[in-house]
Amino acid sequence: MTTSFESSDAIRTTRPLRYAQNVEFERTLQLEHGGTLPRVHVCYETYGTLTAAKDNAVLICHALSGDSHVARHDPEDDPGWWDLLVGPGKPIDTDRFFVICPNNLGSCRGTSGPSDLNTTTGQPYGGDFPLITTGDIVEVQRMLIDHLGIDKLLAVIGGSMGGQQVLLWGTRFPDRVAGAVAIATSAGLTNQALAFDIVGRNAILRDPKFANGQYYQNGGPSVGLAVARMLAHITYLSPQSMAQKFEPDRLQPRELQTNFENKFSVGSYLAYQGHRFVERFDANSYISLTMAMDLFDLGREPEILERNLGQSRCRWLVMSFSTDWLFPPFQSEQIVHALLRSHRPVTYAMIESTCGHDAFLLKDDVDRYGELIRYFLRHLPEGVEPKPEDALSTPAEHDAARGGRGGGLAPTAPTSIFHNARLDYLTMTSLIPPDSSVLDLGCGQGALLSLLRERGHRRLMGVELDEQAIVHCARQGLDVIRADLNQGMVGFGDNFFDVVVLSQTLQTVRDVPRLLTDMLRVGRLGIVSFPNFAFGPLRRHLMEQGRAPRAKLLGHQWYNSPNIRFLSIADFQDYCREYSIRIHRMVALDTERGMEVAAENDPNLNADTAIFVVSR
Amino acid sequence: MTTSFESSDAIRTTRPLRYAQNVEFERTLQLEHGGTLPRVHVCYETYGTLTAAKDNAVLICHALSGDSHVARHDPEDDPGWWDLLVGPGKPIDTDRFFVICPNNLGSCRGTSGPSDLNTTTGQPYGGDFPLITTGDIVEVQRMLIDHLGIDKLLAVIGGSMGGQQVLLWGTRFPDRVAGAVAIATSAGLTNQALAFDIVGRNAILRDPKFANGQYYQNGGPSVGLAVARMLAHITYLSPQSMAQKFEPDRLQPRELQTNFENKFSVGSYLAYQGHRFVERFDANSYISLTMAMDLFDLGREPEILERNLGQSRCRWLVMSFSTDWLFPPFQSEQIVHALLRSHRPVTYAMIESTCGHDAFLLKDDVDRYGELIRYFLRHLPEGVEPKPEDALSTPAEHDAARGGRGGGLAPTAPTSIFHNARLDYLTMTSLIPPDSSVLDLGCGQGALLSLLRERGHRRLMGVELDEQAIVHCARQGLDVIRADLNQGMVGFGDNFFDVVVLSQTLQTVRDVPRLLTDMLRVGRLGIVSFPNFAFGPLRRHLMEQGRAPRAKLLGHQWYNSPNIRFLSIADFQDYCREYSIRIHRMVALDTERGMEVAAENDPNLNADTAIFVVSR
Repeated sequence: MTTSFESSDAIRTTRPLRYAQNVEFERTLQLEHGGTLPRVHVCYETYGTLTAAKDNAVLICHALSGDSHVARHDPEDDPGWWDLLVGPGKPIDTDRFFVICPNNLGSCRGTSGPSDLNTTTGQPYGGDFPLITTGDIVEVQRMLIDHLGIDKLLAVIGGSMGGQQVLLWGTRFPDRVAGAVAIATSAGLTNQALAFDIVGRNAILRDPKFANGQYYQNGGPSVGLAVARMLAHITYLSPQSMAQKFEPDRLQPRELQTNFENKFSVGSYLAYQGHRFVERFDANSYISLTMAMDLFDLGREPEILERNLGQSRCRWLVMSFSTDWLFPPFQSEQIVHALLRSHRPVTYAMIESTCGHDAFLLKDDVDRYGELIRYFLRHLPEGVEPKPEDALSTPAEHDAARGGRGGGLAPTAPTSIFHNARLDYLTMTSLIPPDSSVLDLGCGQGALLSLLRERGHRRLMGVELDEQAIVHCARQGLDVIRADLNQGMVGFGDNFFDVVVLSQTLQTVRDVPRLLTDMLRVGRLGIVSFPNFAFGPLRRHLMEQGRAPRAKLLGHQWYNSPNIRFLSIADFQDYCREYSIRIHRMVALDTERGMEVAAENDPNLNADTAIFVVSR
Repeated sequence: MTTSFESSDAIRTTRPLRYAQNVEFERTLQLEHGGTLPRVHVCYETYGTLTAAKDNAVLICHALSGDSHVARHDPEDDPGWWDLLVGPGKPIDTDRFFVICPNNLGSCRGTSGPSDLNTTTGQPYGGDFPLITTGDIVEVQRMLIDHLGIDKLLAVIGGSMGGQQVLLWGTRFPDRVAGAVAIATSAGLTNQALAFDIVGRNAILRDPKFANGQYYQNGGPSVGLAVARMLAHITYLSPQSMAQKFEPDRLQPRELQTNFENKFSVGSYLAYQGHRFVERFDANSYISLTMAMDLFDLGREPEILERNLGQSRCRWLVMSFSTDWLFPPFQSEQIVHALLRSHRPVTYAMIESTCGHDAFLLKDDVDRYGELIRYFLRHLPEGVEPKPEDALSTPAEHDAARGGRGGGLAPTAPTSIFHNARLDYLTMTSLIPPDSSVLDLGCGQGALLSLLRERGHRRLMGVELDEQAIVHCARQGLDVIRADLNQGMVGFGDNFFDVVVLSQTLQTVRDVPRLLTDMLRVGRLGIVSFPNFAFGPLRRHLMEQGRAPRAKLLGHQWYNSPNIRFLSIADFQDYCREYSIRIHRMVALDTERGMEVAAENDPNLNADTAIFVVSR
């Protein structure tokens, strides 16, 4: 059969990790739930060279069943679980960064865990291993970082359960992290994800060979552990990727030596995954770590999450994957909203993917999630300063960045409507008070934000729907939040920005009142620009020729325009009256001629573009 | 804790079903996969009275773990699994219909199954029970229907695995079914659903107490069966309903006597479900029936599905639920598309629900799915004739039905724009050739279709997005397909209708070329009506007042109109030239004055509404 059995869960030999280092700590670790562990030892691997200033250290936190072997150390080395991302020249560039990856507390891959000898009994802990939490796991990582003499990490990076560790690093040790990258994660499992863990644990705990976890002499609960892993594996894939992998030869199982049902292509895949997992993982560790994940709760209530994430002082990169149903995008958005409400700098991208939760371990979408990590790291610790290596290299590239706006709505929607439209940018920047913080709704590739940065503005943020545009912004060190403006601006707090800009985007929005209301809630001032539908040539086109006026003048046809709202300057003024919006200033432009249209010169007839400065 | 433990899986006493009847068949049943079963017996229950003409029989097919006890027979009787729908005056009205519900072959609730004695060994079949298919299950149902002397069923109804039986009834016995109701089902499981079944079976098969299915003396694989059931239960709920049920008291398990992990509210729920299931269900039956479901394949390839469903001669009602991820809506749509391509009469609704797959067993959405079943049954066997009891009772109701159009796009979008707009309906009906088949895109509550039916048209169908509008159409016996016109018309074959109508809907569509192209592919003739944007008063409004002209005249403001495309008669003529669309006729109306605008009278200036008859 053609089904590939490679997956995130790269099966490695169980021979010793050649480059692994070990450290044992003398002091007794007090655990969050009350137990203790004496003489914790940690297995870890490092890559690259720590600078003399010790300012280039990047900590990678692995997920449930991972280990310290994040990448190959040399071409002959065993594959690492994130070779895609970690290595010389790769997004987490080991020529540049000193990468540290420790195996987690509770695991079975070198760090203290349930298979260790309990010194008080002389037997393995087994079921007596104390209850550990994600906080305990992170505490042990901190002990390692202390041991390495590193005061402040440049970045902490992790996906899934590793992302939950990142969230804790950012909030518990605010002075010790400059950048945090939380991928495909959550502030706490959904009840659905929790339920899957529970079923998996029940399969293990009720396997007769589990024997209360004291099975190290008898082979252990291999059936229960395999069943748990099979189940978990379904949750790592998306329905789409499963259809792709298994539908073509659905009835043909791969020929396997297995004691599990070997029917259907997906059945042989699951049998293989379950079987191999038992060879490399310990059931007690599986129970210990899933329970830590199930108990993790950084704030399922928004207020608590905001309070916790508000402790952080780092820059954040949060990413989700569109088809991830185990850690669905809305959970990343909860994190992002809490960060926004507590005024933390954050970029958020939802990566369009067919790969489900596993996406962050696979190559399919690495062109986007990998590059976002690369650019994010490159702009640490400060972030807002443009780096020379990210300078746009060609004039064409520069033009594209200046001119292209994703509009925050439709990926293909260029909302610039007149040839010389960038006059409106220059006008808008002149209307924005110096040093004010600015949010650009539908920021596209960040042209306006870049202009503002050149003018010395520091607290800048964009909202955009298009992935590629977000990557482009990240490349320039600009923070952007992925959001659909038609869904409102739920994550943004009141008066969060001095100025909120809605440039050439109003006419593409379905729910105009919602967006305008939100905009003036979030910003003290709003700047709105739009094409004036009552511009003379457009009026005459309809009046004299009886045709939808934008057909030629606006660059689109009536049947394919991204513009779905048509308004004049007078219409917008009426709207402001009706909705009690204060108009501070109006600038009317004839962008064809490159000039402003004075108030006494009937702007509603003679301007093609209007810019309003408004507030509640 | 507050978590309710009632669910679809209504736990019943295991005492004998008081009203159950039994029949045993002499002949040996040849099974589809080659085995045989001698002396099959069937346990079934009936409700209501069979007419002398035997033309009111309704067969209900139960799902995986159901049984013959679909409803109470009297107030003291045990609850039935579908009391919501089956009973006097209920949607499946036992005052009117003779309802038959047999337990399925392979089950353990009275009909032949693995726990039966194998007459050749004198032991229960256990693991030796032959492989059965959904086809075998349906064959046994047919034997029962023969036994009852019923030549033709008025309807066959079922959800989930029961819906798959309905699909087979319609296709295998085309002359014996007048109406088929297939709910939350598919022509074959997704690979994801298949994978969950496989993991559940592995938990049972590898339970040491399974003993190759010969466990009837030793208590059986209760752990494996409970784990399988816990897992399955997660797939019956939606993420939304799980959050609702389990989040408020997430950390508080209900106090239960259980040998399973009793942590978290969802954990105690699963433990309870697993535990109770073992008391009432047989593991061998679970294996047998899930395998029948896993093997079911009416055509995962569209062409095969079309060939199979094309065998049917009945009317169809297909329903899915928006949050059902076990049998997701797209699978119902595959069935609907195959029925459309093979020219079968069908109504399709996707019910907006938070209840996941279980929705069809719960009261939350019964106001829609139940009423759709009620109206569908009421119009059998013929369907197109209006029934007196469905006559609209008040003049207001009649007006609403005539005037309201859902538009097929936004639930709230009334696309009628002028006061006296129904002149366009009368004009359109006069443009439609007698006896032609008609598809109305965005049919709303079926006003135009009703008019056409009054004029003697017989093959009529609507497309609509709004659920309530679909229910209203069903009440009148009109067939409607739930679809979003912005997604095109994928299910409809070429030249499927004589005439396709797009009435006052064009201006609300985002992708106009796609829809118009599809429309003229599906219909030999197209009739398109839309408001003329170049109507004199609208032109003057913009010219003289400089305001978006539709503000007052079109009944909406620029910022909240469902209309997002503005075109004139001349624009549409240009479009037809550009896209090589033939214009057969154009009728221009001044609906305010209630008159046609003649060609020599500049319709592009003087008409407020245009109706075009077009074709490729």
